Formats: sequence, C-alpha cells, structure tokens
Amino acid sequence: MKTVSPVTLVPINRWMQGENSLKEDLLAVEEPLQIKLQFGQGDHWQEKALAVTMRTPGHDFELAIGFLLAENIIHGPEDIQLIRYCKKVKDEEKGNVLIVKLSPSVKVDLTLLDRHFFTHSSCGVCGKSAIEAITCEDKALVQDFSKVKTSLLKRLNQMLMKEQTVFKYTGGIHASALFRTNGELLFLREDVGRHNAFDKVVGAAFQQKLLPLSDGLMMLSGRVSFELIQKAIRARIPIIAAVGAPSSLAVSLAKEKGITLIGFLKNDRFNIYSGKERVEMEES
Amino acid sequence: MKTVSPVTLVPINRWMQGENSLKEDLLAVEEPLQIKLQFGQGDHWQEKALAVTMRTPGHDFELAIGFLLAENIIHGPEDIQLIRYCKKVKDEEKGNVLIVKLSPSVKVDLTLLDRHFFTHSSCGVCGKSAIEAITCEDKALVQDFSKVKTSLLKRLNQMLMKEQTVFKYTGGIHASALFRTNGELLFLREDVGRHNAFDKVVGAAFQQKLLPLSDGLMMLSGRVSFELIQKAIRARIPIIAAVGAPSSLAVSLAKEKGITLIGFLKNDRFNIYSGKERVEMEES
Repeated sequence: MKTVSPVTLVPINRWMQGENSLKEDLLAVEEPLQIKLQFGQGDHWQEKALAVTMRTPGHDFELAIGFLLAENIIHGPEDIQLIRYCKKVKDEEKGNVLIVKLSPSVKVDLTLLDRHFFTHSSCGVCGKSAIEAITCEDKALVQDFSKVKTSLLKRLNQMLMKEQTVFKYTGGIHASALFRTNGELLFLREDVGRHNAFDKVVGAAFQQKLLPLSDGLMMLSGRVSFELIQKAIRARIPIIAAVGAPSSLAVSLAKEKGITLIGFLKNDRFNIYSGKERVEMEES
Repeated sequence: MKTVSPVTLVPINRWMQGENSLKEDLLAVEEPLQIKLQFGQGDHWQEKALAVTMRTPGHDFELAIGFLLAENIIHGPEDIQLIRYCKKVKDEEKGNVLIVKLSPSVKVDLTLLDRHFFTHSSCGVCGKSAIEAITCEDKALVQDFSKVKTSLLKRLNQMLMKEQTVFKYTGGIHASALFRTNGELLFLREDVGRHNAFDKVVGAAFQQKLLPLSDGLMMLSGRVSFELIQKAIRARIPIIAAVGAPSSLAVSLAKEKGITLIGFLKNDRFNIYSGKERVEMEES
C-alpha cells in the first residue's frame, strides 16, 4: 500500500513584486475514496458501491462511519461488523477503496440509496431526485444541554488554529473540531472537503460511543451550509460554531431543530443565529 | 412566483467585546433547485429528475446549462429546445423546479445518468460508483492561446472584490468571474456553492456562444478542487486564477490537460502551478 500523506510537494513559479522564482509548494492531497457496502444475512449477502468522495487521505474509516451515520444507514456502533480496504483493486487504487460490512441485523433500504446525479458542493441532498428529500425527519434537540461560556468561544479560534497542522502548510483545507463545553478538545480532522472533515470527526466520536454528546460543540473553519446542520442534528451535537457565515437554510434548520448556531466567530466577537439559550454571556 | 433574492435578513444576537446586542444580519440565501430533463423524439419523450442542488436563487437557467455541459449531456446551444420553471409544483417549490427540454437530436445515455449517492463538497464525481469515473476523457487544451500579463493578474483581486455584491453584504458566498486576457469582465456570478457559481458563468458564456474561449480566464474567489479544473476543461477555458489554494489532484489534472493554474493570487503575488507559458512576466 502506498504511503498516505495529507500533503504533497510540487514545483511552482512564484511571482512576487515583479520577481519570478522557482519554489516548492505544499498542497493538500485530494484523492477519490470509494465506499462499498456489504449487507445481508445468512446466505444472502450483497455488495453495493455506495459513493466516491474526493477526500484527503487519512481517517478513512471514520469518514465512512460518519457518512453512513449521516445517511441514516447505521445508527449504533453495533451496526458495523467490519471495515477494511479492498485488496482486489488496481495498484493505483489501493487504499482508495473501502468496504464496510454491516451487521446482519441492519436493514438497508435500497430505494433510499438510489439517487440520481450528485450535483455540487455544499449539500447532503444532491442526487436525491426530489426536493422533498431535503426534509429533515430527525427530532429537535432539547434545550437542557450544557451551556458554553463566551470566554471559551473567544478562545476557540486560537485553539483551532494551533491544531490545524495541514492548513498551516497548505492553506487549502477545511477543519472540523469537536470540543466539550468545558473546553476539552476531543477530535480535530482536516480535509479538502468540509463535509468530509465533519464526517471524520463524527465517525471518531461514534466509534468511541460518545454520541449523542450533550455538551458537544463542533467548531468549523469555514462557512455553514444546510447540510452541515443536518449532519449535526443526526449526530445530536447541540452547538455549532463557525469562523464563516451560515446560509439562510442553515439558520432555518438550526432554529427548527434546536441547534445553537454561532457564526463569524473571531477572538472578540461572534453572531448567534439560533439557540442563544446555550450561550452563557459573561462580561469581558 | 415568490420574490427571488440572493440575500435575506435575520435577527441575531451579536456579541462584541463583552457586549451582547440585538442586530439584523444579511445571509446568503440557500435553496434547493431541482433540474428535470425532458428528452426523446417523435412520440417517445421522457422526463427524468436529474439533480437537486443547493444554490443561491438567480441565474438558474445558466446554472442548469453549465451543469448539463459539465456533465457531458449537451454540447452546443442547439441541444436545448426550451428551459422553463415547472408550474405543477407546491407553492413553496415554485421557482425551485426547472425543466430543460433537449432537442430531439440529443442522445441521452441513461446509464451515464445513474449515479449512486452523492457524497460531498468539492467533487463532480461524487455519486459515480466507480473510481474510474473520475478519469477525464477530454482532450488537452493547446498551448497557443492568448497570454495573460502579470499587470492584469495583479488587478484581478480588486476587480473581483469590486463586483462581488452579495459577498460584500453576507461574507458567505463564492464567486466565479470570466475575464478576457485583455481584462474585459464578461460574467460574474455568486453562489453559496462554488460549483454553482462556476456553472452559472459557463452557462452564461455558453448561451452567448462564447465557448470555447481561447482568451478566457476564470477567476475564483476560493480554493480549486479537481472538479473545477474538470469543468474548465469541458468549457475549454484555458486559464484559472484563484484566491485560494489548489488541491493536489487539481494541479495534476491541470498539468495533464494543459490548463494554466494560478493560486494564492494576491495583489502583489501569486503562484503558478501549471501552464506558465500563458503568463507574460513583466517587471513591476
């Protein structure tokens, strides 16, 4: 199996203040990961190629778990019997094809898996062929969760920056980090896809049976789309804090489902778009 | 039909330097757009729901055209007979369901339309169920295109910022802008999805029969993934200049297909990752 690195070095021409020079630059690695599903029972097992996602290699099993959870295919750690890389592939695909074998007790609804066409960037609904598919069926989160103090929110940006190793070198990668409201960092993952980073963190928490996490806060390095809120609801993580802006639909869904949504988080300021009950305001 | 606006106002709590205040904040609108396809000939027409994409409303027809072009379903303006919004939908879906009727001469390969599962963010290949599907079959672009001068590259950032109206208000949106290498701005589109913004610009250029555009330069407000390079190749736009970082696979594909790829474009500097032949270095 080839070496897996989240970064790679390429030769570039750097033009700066009228001068051209040959340099090397570190890039975030983007490679396809195919997720295959094995499911069934007794003598009746089948295999289905589920998805190809363009991801930064590393933490692939967590990515698959987070993805299957978000897609409502698995619900508890007992639903997964085995995850492994596929060996019967071409050399250049080694490490890029992954098989998840589900427990016999898991029922897979094939019609739910049938989507026509993905489309684009920020959306867990792409490829579902009806707009109704974006409806989120999950129950709202209740309001009696732990609160987060403004003194912690003020520090989150620095805490994230400190840990974002790949970003530091490449500038080209998203991060998701799961904290407790007491400030403890549980997991941080980086990926060229913001949804992959989110899925990887959820997958890690799921494997350690930490979900639902009533004192959980997910910190995001970028913007917040509808789909990331959908993933937070599915994982039962009550607080989302993002460096970037939320979209209109992210805010609507957060309000509807009782998610605390904080955006434009800087060291001295932030906006609360939803669920301010979970923010404990302190004087500075 | 409801009013279409790319921005919406929401009440928020703004915490700043220890003070909490009630404010209003402008958000970028994110709403689902379903694209349906009608194709066939004579008495044999069929309709297929192709995709749901989460987009910022506006320029929806261009989005659909750019998407169909990138997906290799259409190849010239004559391939489209009609585009219209669907009227037979629920009130809340009005303006969010769009039908593209293809000309009878267009052959649609249904197997190509069958993808299982979209996955995530930065990828035109998501949902294709085999990794081979990411192979790009298009021919490389030839090298005898117009050159872009460093003096123009230095100004592009400011030119983009000046025109990015939605970003100015919301901070939460991507932009793509198509320039000629003489500096003429042809089209600029903003969208919560970076791929939608790209598709909208390509759709606009396609409608005006400007593609392939041998002196075209696409300027991107963010990072560059594999898929955006794929879309550039399909649209035959030879130069991509981005404010953000490219991924490893974006650089590989750009090199392979003769695309000039510039990243980290600031006012006084940029990196050339591929195709430096198209950059005319000037002393500052």
